[in-house]
Amino acid sequence: MPDPRFLIIAEGAFGPETSKTANSAVRYLPERVVGVLDSKASGRTCQEVLGFGDAIPVVRTIDEGFALNPTAVLIGIAPAGGQLPAEWRGWILASIDRGLDVWSGLHTYLASDAEFASRAAAKGVALKDLRRPPPKLSVSDGKAKSVDALVVLSVGSDCNVGKMTAQLQLARGLEARGLRTRFAATGQTGILIAGWGIAVDAVVADFIGGAAEQLVLEAAPDADVVLVEGQGSLIHPGYSGVTLGLLHGSCPKGMILCHQSSREFIGDYSGRTPWLRIPPLGELVRLHEYAAAPVQPSKVLGIALNTYDLSHAEAEAAVARAAAETGLPATDPVRFDPAPLVDAIATFAWSRPPA
Amino acid sequence: MPDPRFLIIAEGAFGPETSKTANSAVRYLPERVVGVLDSKASGRTCQEVLGFGDAIPVVRTIDEGFALNPTAVLIGIAPAGGQLPAEWRGWILASIDRGLDVWSGLHTYLASDAEFASRAAAKGVALKDLRRPPPKLSVSDGKAKSVDALVVLSVGSDCNVGKMTAQLQLARGLEARGLRTRFAATGQTGILIAGWGIAVDAVVADFIGGAAEQLVLEAAPDADVVLVEGQGSLIHPGYSGVTLGLLHGSCPKGMILCHQSSREFIGDYSGRTPWLRIPPLGELVRLHEYAAAPVQPSKVLGIALNTYDLSHAEAEAAVARAAAETGLPATDPVRFDPAPLVDAIATFAWSRPPA
Repeated sequence: MPDPRFLIIAEGAFGPETSKTANSAVRYLPERVVGVLDSKASGRTCQEVLGFGDAIPVVRTIDEGFALNPTAVLIGIAPAGGQLPAEWRGWILASIDRGLDVWSGLHTYLASDAEFASRAAAKGVALKDLRRPPPKLSVSDGKAKSVDALVVLSVGSDCNVGKMTAQLQLARGLEARGLRTRFAATGQTGILIAGWGIAVDAVVADFIGGAAEQLVLEAAPDADVVLVEGQGSLIHPGYSGVTLGLLHGSCPKGMILCHQSSREFIGDYSGRTPWLRIPPLGELVRLHEYAAAPVQPSKVLGIALNTYDLSHAEAEAAVARAAAETGLPATDPVRFDPAPLVDAIATFAWSRPPA
Repeated sequence: MPDPRFLIIAEGAFGPETSKTANSAVRYLPERVVGVLDSKASGRTCQEVLGFGDAIPVVRTIDEGFALNPTAVLIGIAPAGGQLPAEWRGWILASIDRGLDVWSGLHTYLASDAEFASRAAAKGVALKDLRRPPPKLSVSDGKAKSVDALVVLSVGSDCNVGKMTAQLQLARGLEARGLRTRFAATGQTGILIAGWGIAVDAVVADFIGGAAEQLVLEAAPDADVVLVEGQGSLIHPGYSGVTLGLLHGSCPKGMILCHQSSREFIGDYSGRTPWLRIPPLGELVRLHEYAAAPVQPSKVLGIALNTYDLSHAEAEAAVARAAAETGLPATDPVRFDPAPLVDAIATFAWSRPPA
């Protein structure tokens, strides 16, 4: 079966900070994206909206999108809570009627919607719910501690700061150092890119750690390094449970701390006065090492900054400041050379005693 | 509708440490329990097995249980992972056939089992799944920070150390001090006892904090103190995500740290060499205050010990040692006077500035 050619739905929200799944598909799978639907950003290219993605067009209507000959539709934004906006139903039904598969990372599964399911069955198209967990999961019990591979988890000061992107950027560099590296996807976008994984925020709460453990046990046997995609933040009240379950279930021996340099407050509450200030990076390093220690002692190996909204000079200064504040290697692994973080992980991986 | 009269199924596992739901029903609802089914412990009374529960008999067969004239069956143990043991299906079907309601706190919902559901519908009996979450939940956003009531969460060194029991014991004492006190249940046993609540370990992982927030917002308006039932442990890799989500969603200003004095290792892994050592109480106090602080600064107000397996002298020594180690009030609120913890909470509640 050929790779899908996606029309991405990101209506009203296509932008650097607001459409994570769409943006990652454009960054990592550009050859599979024919266009993006967003009436607000239409008439521009992905390059103009995001700063990458070249000439992939942003269109105003679903019919303009269909004219680009997609073979599938991808729902490219994930609103808080994951509910499907009512107005999108018509687009999804029209897509099914045209014989397009529909891919979704929403919490509300398309295949559980009776109208979508029956229409898709009648048309013979697939509804791919990236977030639907596998049917059998169990409670974690520390098995991930004893794998031979070096497990490295990305953690963050907030949601949507670059935890997945950092790991994808580092994976290439680690392979180049001769380390067999596997990326373990834990969210719908990572699963879309990697082709496997478990959306840990969609499992029943008791099984967060178990899902993380299962991913590590699956990835570790043919790997020297397993890069586990982090989720949420230990200080984000909406998602901290997912974050800690992932930390304790995956038992990483190393962590990469991710942060968007310009962000001062947890960002999900833009409709309200910001209220949850992000602590300094040094505090976050201590918090993560302290929270990890009872189950599996773990070190923050470096800082991955996201500086997309800063000037070049500001970004360089932010990197230098993060390194000085924490005494750890730091870089923006998208904008600058990821080598400082690759070096830190590779050195740790090569210097470990044989199991 | 009259209160149910329960026959509790705890086959093979009725004991002080192994049948939490059964034990709490016997402790808090003894007038509603006609007997307990466990062929291993049969012929004894609850008093003999648990140290409380007086003459409630333990029976060997389901028919002996039916002879006690229950109006409902309660599944009284919750195995790791929550799967229903296959051999119990026959008992449940026999109970339905006799017209008994079936109450369950298992992860696998009875009402989702086609055979149980159709048989129950035919017989007109109810299948009560205590763990089934309400249909509408959302992501938490810190609203629980601003309630007027003092929110106190019980936290623990491990699962099954007495987090629910401590809160229930303290609730009575706080009422006696003139503080309107509500117990917010977060697990199936607490829900059984309190008659309301949400099993936070059964919600989709993204909504742990939201479920906790919803409970606090529901309990707070008519209360001076809201005692939130804790779940899991921040250091238990199987359940730490639930624990942190509950901490950040409920935004307690005070915590009660619960510990079983004789326990040195996380207890769920009895089939393996123990591997996860419980840190000293002082470390646990710091860990919880550190984890809480970014969202809502919170203090551990006292230590609730569970000393059921110690002699009286050993228990007194354990209480004195916990107080000395932490500099906090300590007691076993079941075995001894809960006053030290009641005092600590009441003093904090009365000394807070008006909102």
